[in-house]
Amino acid sequence: MKSDLFLYGAPASGKSTLAKALGRALALPVIDLDEAIVQRIAMPIADYFQQQGEDAFRYVETDVLAGILEAPSAFRRVIALGGGTLLRQGNRELCQAHGTVFCLDTPDAQELSRRLAAGGKSRPLGNQAEARAQHYASFEHRITRWFELSDSLVLVGTGIAPDFIQTDRTVFDATVAKLYPQLAASPLDIIPSGEKNKTPETVMKLWHDFAQAGIGRTNTVVACGGGVTGDLTGFAAATWMRGIPWINIPTTLLSMIDASTGGKTGFNLPEGKNLAGAFHSPRLVVIDTEFLKTLPPRELRSGYGELIKHLIIGGKNAQMDFTAIPTAKTIADSLAVKVNIVRQDPKETLGKRILLNCGHTIGHAVESASNYTLSHGEAVAIGCVEEAKIAVEQGLAPENWPDELATSFQKAGLPTELPEGMTRDSLTERIRLDKKHANGTITYALPCNWGDVKAVKLHE
Amino acid sequence: MKSDLFLYGAPASGKSTLAKALGRALALPVIDLDEAIVQRIAMPIADYFQQQGEDAFRYVETDVLAGILEAPSAFRRVIALGGGTLLRQGNRELCQAHGTVFCLDTPDAQELSRRLAAGGKSRPLGNQAEARAQHYASFEHRITRWFELSDSLVLVGTGIAPDFIQTDRTVFDATVAKLYPQLAASPLDIIPSGEKNKTPETVMKLWHDFAQAGIGRTNTVVACGGGVTGDLTGFAAATWMRGIPWINIPTTLLSMIDASTGGKTGFNLPEGKNLAGAFHSPRLVVIDTEFLKTLPPRELRSGYGELIKHLIIGGKNAQMDFTAIPTAKTIADSLAVKVNIVRQDPKETLGKRILLNCGHTIGHAVESASNYTLSHGEAVAIGCVEEAKIAVEQGLAPENWPDELATSFQKAGLPTELPEGMTRDSLTERIRLDKKHANGTITYALPCNWGDVKAVKLHE
Repeated sequence: MKSDLFLYGAPASGKSTLAKALGRALALPVIDLDEAIVQRIAMPIADYFQQQGEDAFRYVETDVLAGILEAPSAFRRVIALGGGTLLRQGNRELCQAHGTVFCLDTPDAQELSRRLAAGGKSRPLGNQAEARAQHYASFEHRITRWFELSDSLVLVGTGIAPDFIQTDRTVFDATVAKLYPQLAASPLDIIPSGEKNKTPETVMKLWHDFAQAGIGRTNTVVACGGGVTGDLTGFAAATWMRGIPWINIPTTLLSMIDASTGGKTGFNLPEGKNLAGAFHSPRLVVIDTEFLKTLPPRELRSGYGELIKHLIIGGKNAQMDFTAIPTAKTIADSLAVKVNIVRQDPKETLGKRILLNCGHTIGHAVESASNYTLSHGEAVAIGCVEEAKIAVEQGLAPENWPDELATSFQKAGLPTELPEGMTRDSLTERIRLDKKHANGTITYALPCNWGDVKAVKLHE
Repeated sequence: MKSDLFLYGAPASGKSTLAKALGRALALPVIDLDEAIVQRIAMPIADYFQQQGEDAFRYVETDVLAGILEAPSAFRRVIALGGGTLLRQGNRELCQAHGTVFCLDTPDAQELSRRLAAGGKSRPLGNQAEARAQHYASFEHRITRWFELSDSLVLVGTGIAPDFIQTDRTVFDATVAKLYPQLAASPLDIIPSGEKNKTPETVMKLWHDFAQAGIGRTNTVVACGGGVTGDLTGFAAATWMRGIPWINIPTTLLSMIDASTGGKTGFNLPEGKNLAGAFHSPRLVVIDTEFLKTLPPRELRSGYGELIKHLIIGGKNAQMDFTAIPTAKTIADSLAVKVNIVRQDPKETLGKRILLNCGHTIGHAVESASNYTLSHGEAVAIGCVEEAKIAVEQGLAPENWPDELATSFQKAGLPTELPEGMTRDSLTERIRLDKKHANGTITYALPCNWGDVKAVKLHE
């Protein structure tokens, strides 16, 4: 079975740490090659290097690796390799025959030397990291960064999704299934695309298909699609036999930087959006930029709406190209803003997550008043600029702030003006009628500057 | 507003402890009268007694109590009274005008002297407990025992349910609503009785009614009915806006001693029972024996089936009348068996809860093979006896054990023989076809003797 998950990369890139986290998330056995070698040679690797030289070490390393891979295993394994294990072409071919090699991006020089200095473990070849850059760059499956939350592991990278789809039972968005037929060869279910399908009926269909497929308490299901697919599959997993594990593989920019992380699942009722739902974090979130290559331009723009919102919260007025397909690093930077907030308030009980609602009080009203002809990101762009104006009116933001913010959204091709027929008053009336705001006050998370969002309650 | 909850009873009956637990469960303010008095007199109550005498103390007590009750409060309050506060008729009337007085049963003499000896707090009138028995017996709303689980408080008593129904929004079983029209004056929803209504359609109806009633994140909903009502309302609460608190008021013996506690909620799909569900413990379970007075005899028998199962697990071959309406003490003793197990394995992840499945592997098969013409308790009685026979065959139980067990179930009027047309083989085949037993083994929790249940996997 060609299914083992190898983690490779420069010394101190985090192979051992990530292997443990991935093993925990997927309940898979973890093997650390360096530890297995130390068991064999019965001394620290650095000492062996000094006494016997690199050639002797590589000989032992190959032998230990081959022994591990030849041993029968009922489970796929997560195997952390050494920093130079795959310099030998034979080792590389051996690993690739047994599974997929994921190469971890090398952290920047400063972070790297910090980790090398802090690590108790001796790393004999640490100073050759730069010399090997070309070697590491030659691996196609790349993990750029990862985040550990209390109940989720989030991987951000390129070319990393297929290994978590092909060996598990996966629910696909219909559009994704059409674009990636090789991934969706035997889907558990295919969900029609679009918010209008985020209904109880689709949940029923998922439950039905889980039953037909014999999904039991020990199975894991995978969602591969946008926010709708993740929300529905996550909810079905939360409520199947009182909760089974799931993996989320978001395929849109919006779901990569927002809905995939934070544990919210659910669907819409005729009476309102997301009224039914559960907190049920995916064990693993796999964010793979490969999917963005086929994302329609309007979906990309919609994602940039949330990305710029994260820039407001995180405080970075980045001079970036808001029209390009974002890199894994850009996505990781944006997601880090959400992760930092979710970590402080995992179940939205402490009021910390309200910052993420920046631009959304008006944004949601605009989205719903447009009858969802505006995308979420478009509505959020308009909402942010409109709420920035409120911030100015309340004396919380400088006069030129709404224009500055609008410029950023416009660079991403997003609208920043209220559509024809909508006024601030008509939107406030819409918000006020919402049951959640029944006490006459409206809560905003007002964008006041880059890195300055203020939660305020205003009487209307 | 006549809605405060007063806890009264003999010294060391647990008023203060329960008041804190109840306040936590319902997020209500808690007032301890003795503590308020100590603040006023600025010395321990025992010292004041000694210096000023009981009359002076009672005068202060009444004054402090009146002050508390006169103070305006936006919330109903949980108020722990002193052990003799209501000896004065005026205090009694004052409390009853402001809410309901719940009298805690006095623990037996041994437990009482243990608590009095252990308590750091000085209790001047502790030795008069017996003399006051008649006084305490004169209160109609009685709490016999309570259990604290990690996320639930369970009250067992008599005449205690109405106070948790009338001030909250309650989902009723249709039969209960008809029998207790005064309780169901303005129900949130009425669920048609019976397992056949434990469907996704009824959950949809509940969600719809929650939406219409404007139930928000800070609301609590109450379930008042049997296991079906609790399972459905609990699930709707688990999934409404990603989870809101709920209170469970079971009205059948079966749901009192079993389904009400343990956190399981859910419903049936066409493909199987309880396939969809969530763990979502009610904040509070109120078990009120008053409801048993109107319980049909067959429902009572069904409850005794589970009650005897708990006797097997708990190890008590009680010489009790299995046909009488059980007392609150009998229910508390039975529930204690389940509570002790649930505490060790709240989410059924550690394998400890399997003991509760005693008699249920075959019992479920019998129930389903009978097309639910057998009640759950009837099927469990048959299942226990049949599994006792397996225990004998496996050399795990004495020869006469199945007969002894059958005698107990028969005393409760329950069947103990496989119905016409069912054989052990046909049932095993039914169990084997169940996806949960796909690997060719069947897991039993075999009753082997009173207090001796063994989990075994058998190949078939």
